[in-house]
Amino acid sequence: MDERVLDTLKYDAQGLIPAIVQDADTGEVLMMAYMNKQSLADSIRTGKTHFWSRSRRKYWMKGESSGHTQDIQEIRIDCDADTILIRARQKGAACHNGYRSCFYRMLEQDGPWKTVGERLFDPEQVYGKKA
Amino acid sequence: MDERVLDTLKYDAQGLIPAIVQDADTGEVLMMAYMNKQSLADSIRTGKTHFWSRSRRKYWMKGESSGHTQDIQEIRIDCDADTILIRARQKGAACHNGYRSCFYRMLEQDGPWKTVGERLFDPEQVYGKKA
Repeated sequence: MDERVLDTLKYDAQGLIPAIVQDADTGEVLMMAYMNKQSLADSIRTGKTHFWSRSRRKYWMKGESSGHTQDIQEIRIDCDADTILIRARQKGAACHNGYRSCFYRMLEQDGPWKTVGERLFDPEQVYGKKA
Repeated sequence: MDERVLDTLKYDAQGLIPAIVQDADTGEVLMMAYMNKQSLADSIRTGKTHFWSRSRRKYWMKGESSGHTQDIQEIRIDCDADTILIRARQKGAACHNGYRSCFYRMLEQDGPWKTVGERLFDPEQVYGKKA
């Protein structure tokens, strides 16, 4: 990898850049998470998505606990070079709540949000019970 | 619209939430921009995408200058309620650089970024020459 590619992107004040992950086969938008230079470099090097968790303040490889990894097929940037789009093959489910996509709730006319996504696993069985 | 829906989302410290726009017909990811409560309310009310421009510090309706508006077909939120996904019908091109999608550059093995997207218009003819 040409390391200079990491410097062509615009990171925010925390050194982060949002990365959208899209299913390379179906086009479904699976999730959005944040990368920094290190996690982007790891993603490019390994071909699997790595992110920076703002809440847990740590690096993580998508699927490191669940096995639901993402094999990167293509990395794109937008016109302003401040958003990444990754097209990937998703093993299992992208969402930690067990849904194929994190975007499993849709706005309806008569109520706030309706669950429309497909749930593939029970989070308690994959991650263990919450304390 | 039930205004309470606006309060179910998590906005950042600036009151903003990222919104991904996807072509409802082809699945192509067109752009990502930021909304606040007001622009989300306007989007829901009018059925056309409205955003908050961080650089220009103003509301804008997508296509207000170019005519390249986005007709909203569906609004989704992710599991953490901190990212919006909008499926829309795009008139013309989403990108202010004239490309159908803002994600018109792809990372290649041997170089930084290669333009792969389709350019639909010349920005100077739509927005006028830059000063």
